[in-house]
Amino acid sequence: MTDRQDNPSGEDSLIARYFRPLASDPGAFDLNDDAAILKSHGEEIVVTTDAVIEGVHFLPDDPPDTIACKALRVNLSDLAAKGATPAGFVLTLALRTAEEAWLTPFARGLGEDAELFGCPLLGGDTVSTPGPMMISVTAFGRVPPGKMIHRSGAKPGDRVVVTGTIGDAALGLDILRGGAVATALADDIATKEMLVERYRIPQPRNALAKAVRDHTHAAMDVSDGLAGDLAKLCAASGVSAAIDTQSIPLSAAAAKVLARGTLGIEAIVAGGDDYEILCAVPEDRFEAFAERARMAGVAISSIGTIIAGASVPKFLDAQGREIALKRLSYSHF
Amino acid sequence: MTDRQDNPSGEDSLIARYFRPLASDPGAFDLNDDAAILKSHGEEIVVTTDAVIEGVHFLPDDPPDTIACKALRVNLSDLAAKGATPAGFVLTLALRTAEEAWLTPFARGLGEDAELFGCPLLGGDTVSTPGPMMISVTAFGRVPPGKMIHRSGAKPGDRVVVTGTIGDAALGLDILRGGAVATALADDIATKEMLVERYRIPQPRNALAKAVRDHTHAAMDVSDGLAGDLAKLCAASGVSAAIDTQSIPLSAAAAKVLARGTLGIEAIVAGGDDYEILCAVPEDRFEAFAERARMAGVAISSIGTIIAGASVPKFLDAQGREIALKRLSYSHF
Repeated sequence: MTDRQDNPSGEDSLIARYFRPLASDPGAFDLNDDAAILKSHGEEIVVTTDAVIEGVHFLPDDPPDTIACKALRVNLSDLAAKGATPAGFVLTLALRTAEEAWLTPFARGLGEDAELFGCPLLGGDTVSTPGPMMISVTAFGRVPPGKMIHRSGAKPGDRVVVTGTIGDAALGLDILRGGAVATALADDIATKEMLVERYRIPQPRNALAKAVRDHTHAAMDVSDGLAGDLAKLCAASGVSAAIDTQSIPLSAAAAKVLARGTLGIEAIVAGGDDYEILCAVPEDRFEAFAERARMAGVAISSIGTIIAGASVPKFLDAQGREIALKRLSYSHF
Repeated sequence: MTDRQDNPSGEDSLIARYFRPLASDPGAFDLNDDAAILKSHGEEIVVTTDAVIEGVHFLPDDPPDTIACKALRVNLSDLAAKGATPAGFVLTLALRTAEEAWLTPFARGLGEDAELFGCPLLGGDTVSTPGPMMISVTAFGRVPPGKMIHRSGAKPGDRVVVTGTIGDAALGLDILRGGAVATALADDIATKEMLVERYRIPQPRNALAKAVRDHTHAAMDVSDGLAGDLAKLCAASGVSAAIDTQSIPLSAAAAKVLARGTLGIEAIVAGGDDYEILCAVPEDRFEAFAERARMAGVAISSIGTIIAGASVPKFLDAQGREIALKRLSYSHF
């Protein structure tokens, strides 16, 4: 709706004020229409959708800009793991009230990320809810025809590789909830802040998307927990895996928490919210993949091997004994 | 996740059980991956997103199959008004609990509509919420390059045309809330049921999509209220309109309610939830458009004329006097 409209509804002026500046793509029609156009340029469109809910995926007093970043980045992380280049996104925003003090930093954070990742806002829907806030994002990417990387495709002998470090976000959530990690790190404010930031602001590995497309057999992002997500990748590929738990990349903070016995390894591998890429890399491609990761400035770690079989992946300790995990990942139901 | 998985999480088995049968498109990968593929076949992809929230867009005790239909159909209605052929949709489902008695009819209703409208489920996200249920759908359509119909494009002299009848859904909502219409129609159960069904189950006019593409200058669907949505179309087109209020198509039930004075015309034209197509048809295309509508079995009515100017569209009574409308449409904020 244009500004000359004599009686703009609250919803329309909200969209114009906060979100039109983010709709830089010509296919968004300045958010003045009922739909957007996504051009394919001969490539295939990759579609992914993930929602974040107040009290479930973020906390009510999380800063609004970090909530916006998280809502978009959990979707960008899926695109990265599928080997896709971001093309744009649509947003559904369910709010109790339209407060400027919340919407201004939310839209700013969203806009900065849209620009940083080359993923413009294409459209959306703003609705009122009497309940918790919910932000649902559907994100689009592009891949050459037939080149999306699937969960299926892992083969016995492939290396199991993850980016970044695992478990930090779960420890950050524990801190925000005043759990054991908060107590153990009581005086170490910088470390606590780092872990909380890892929970609030995922670092999707889009810089590695093309390398994933060129060099992996299978990939997905780690969102619900390394153990559970690896189990899904293996199930889709019809294989199993043996993980050398000692090789799982940990931040210094996570290593300290583990060494002190504050939490066990299960909290790390089943914790969720990592938003790192988990992939199966054939041995003869590993060096090339590692080189591309170095060029992109993304750390990668080889944590085990895909093996034949249908059992749940094994997590082995330093002595090669299987670690019993009571739970593999976060589940909503 | 495949069924051989040793410990499927509740979320994954929920998706497998209820929603995998709906994912008939090969690009959905049986919901076994993190993303879907949407092929364009050289056409442009039209993207639209609309959410429905318990207590706002549907009522807690509405039948689950009608909630599913409404969530999908409000998006199909946008595609129809843009002249696009449905290609698929993704779904975000935020639930308090995963109850079979609710999910079974919900998935059945969704699946029947996906088949009826040729719009398969491509992917989704199922999350838990402590608050009201929310169903967010992003739907995709296809149009030949450059052929999406916009809100802008209406020209002075065009006929203002709507499909179906206007106002029934608003009266149905009034009945469900026990308002004045419920009292006025106390003994007329069949009429009340018809109006409630119009609120619960929109009839998107996808059968008319190609005719809209071929014969209209501008179009949108009526979702927030005829008066407000026409104001949006006029604003986007830089024009105004004069509406002959007597020509607005009413069901016999709505005509009866108006004749009795139970509610005024404002409740009809600002009520929302109609999900009819509103379009601007050049005079020399009107007969061809009307013929296509007859072939498609969709009633259309010519209700006024696009005129030059920047004022809010005028609604005129039988004597040509302007009717003062206090509100034009529903707004969330």
